[in-house]
Amino acid sequence: MDIRKLVKNEVVGLKAYNAKEIPCRIKLDANESPYGFADAAKRITGIRTNRYPDPEAKVLRQLIAKDLKVGTGDILFGNGSDELIYYLITTFGGPVLYPVPTFSMYGIIGQALGEEKIEVPLDKDFDLDTDVFLTTVRKKKPKLVFLSSPNNPTGNCFSTDRILKVLEASKGIVVIDEAYQPFSSERGMLPLLKDYENLIFMRTLSKIGLAALRLGFMVAAPGIIEEVNKVRLPFNVNAFSQAIAVSALKRKKEFRASIRTIVAERSRLWEELERIAGIKPFPSEANFILLRVDDPAHVYNSLLRKGILVRNLNDAVKGCLRVTVGTPKENTAFLKALKKIVC
Amino acid sequence: MDIRKLVKNEVVGLKAYNAKEIPCRIKLDANESPYGFADAAKRITGIRTNRYPDPEAKVLRQLIAKDLKVGTGDILFGNGSDELIYYLITTFGGPVLYPVPTFSMYGIIGQALGEEKIEVPLDKDFDLDTDVFLTTVRKKKPKLVFLSSPNNPTGNCFSTDRILKVLEASKGIVVIDEAYQPFSSERGMLPLLKDYENLIFMRTLSKIGLAALRLGFMVAAPGIIEEVNKVRLPFNVNAFSQAIAVSALKRKKEFRASIRTIVAERSRLWEELERIAGIKPFPSEANFILLRVDDPAHVYNSLLRKGILVRNLNDAVKGCLRVTVGTPKENTAFLKALKKIVC
Repeated sequence: MDIRKLVKNEVVGLKAYNAKEIPCRIKLDANESPYGFADAAKRITGIRTNRYPDPEAKVLRQLIAKDLKVGTGDILFGNGSDELIYYLITTFGGPVLYPVPTFSMYGIIGQALGEEKIEVPLDKDFDLDTDVFLTTVRKKKPKLVFLSSPNNPTGNCFSTDRILKVLEASKGIVVIDEAYQPFSSERGMLPLLKDYENLIFMRTLSKIGLAALRLGFMVAAPGIIEEVNKVRLPFNVNAFSQAIAVSALKRKKEFRASIRTIVAERSRLWEELERIAGIKPFPSEANFILLRVDDPAHVYNSLLRKGILVRNLNDAVKGCLRVTVGTPKENTAFLKALKKIVC
Repeated sequence: MDIRKLVKNEVVGLKAYNAKEIPCRIKLDANESPYGFADAAKRITGIRTNRYPDPEAKVLRQLIAKDLKVGTGDILFGNGSDELIYYLITTFGGPVLYPVPTFSMYGIIGQALGEEKIEVPLDKDFDLDTDVFLTTVRKKKPKLVFLSSPNNPTGNCFSTDRILKVLEASKGIVVIDEAYQPFSSERGMLPLLKDYENLIFMRTLSKIGLAALRLGFMVAAPGIIEEVNKVRLPFNVNAFSQAIAVSALKRKKEFRASIRTIVAERSRLWEELERIAGIKPFPSEANFILLRVDDPAHVYNSLLRKGILVRNLNDAVKGCLRVTVGTPKENTAFLKALKKIVC
């Protein structure tokens, strides 16, 4: 398969911006100021504020590649996964197909870029409705399919066999957005990369403690990465985010411990929610739980009056709120408040 | 003038992503981790790494609005000006018109987004070639005109009266990119905002000591800002860049002193370059100087062998290199090396 055939003509003809770092002693090439704010920045990383960030994010790239056991050329960083969605739709165009309800940015960015959006409802278990989905894939020939698994806001993973069917049926690119994978009992589908040339994974650091940084990345075959890299802004990941991500990602034990705690708290939260009359929590493989309540607006507002902010998703999933798993103390406070409101 | 008529239909129908901050005590709405890396981040700003950044950059916005004497609703931030160019072309579409040589990203991003690019050569003094430019504006009706003034890589400001003529003749948006304005003897054209509804300014912190942050912003009428904001990614400026920019921008004396030094060094550099046989430096209102040499590849490579990196612009401006103004010591080293190479 020639990946370029999936890429818009305008993008195929484009050359990636050349922003490679050239070793030197006195750097006078990039219209930077020679004066930085070392003491403001140095406290954290010694970064010189006046210099552009590493456009290739080399240190971070090596760390993540090693971690995921993929090549450094298989990774492309975004200023959050949001930006990667922008780049993917810019690169491959539309139609853009995705199940609903799902992460809203696929549709928003698809529309911003003027591409056709096709939405296929999930089945009653929030899994892919294979019949309709595959028929749509074959008929509409989407350039891009976005599958968020675990899915936001429903929390479940889509069935592996159904995802595989979509992959088999797709002539375009299939993007599996694994933003919430670290919280899942399933292992993630990264090993599929060697079997499907049209497959792209998205991951993010935003859910595992580093949302302030805005750092997402995609993993795919180097041929795909090269094409998407042509539309990437050369300095899209700032120097501080790169450095802080590197220092944080090295603290694996801390990461793992925080994820374990969140997963354990998710179980406790789910079980407690199950016991409350009038509340239906849906199973979750993510760091949040979707729950159906009788009067979502009332519950949402009552929680907020107690200072507890959840997400009212009534527009996307009738009758539902989404609650992110907090600290044990926060979860307990949430449960207590919720019981007072609905009981 | 109804600005919406200039906006692509897909964008007009779009609603800006709602990412307003809602005050709360326990925040459980945004799928963030409750665990951050306080000690890594706190050293600089006390930012909690696990929380998304302020999508409105309120503190920074107020600071800059006050500084420029514009309203807070007149500003839109980008992850560097590069991202603003993406957003502008996404919002308004093409054709995209700009003089050449100029900043390369107008053309690169225009092409990435599949829009027609129209390039009009500058005149022999690197000023706008009014006749050709205006004819092209009238004939091609560009949706966007980009004018970098001071212009990169030529260094000069375009004549005010010629810019005004372009503004008068344009039915589309005119973007004046003032990335290098802080180094100019001219005052910048921001006051024109009240006279032209189709005018947008771009500014950046990248040239005045904060390139590592990736922070650009545009200034325009609120009606324009609202439309562009629809295609902006809600968390496009990370928390660290916001905080560091705020703390740096408060140090106005330091900023001004560094700019004064750069401007003084630019004069010295220019005068010394003028005296070297075979070198022609062009006048500059920016933090760099464009210079014509006999053999740009040779000079470039010879400088690099001495550890001095400049930009070889031979492809864009025949025979030319671009040298950024460095510290006095760096500039002296550059001049010494250059003399050795060409004399």
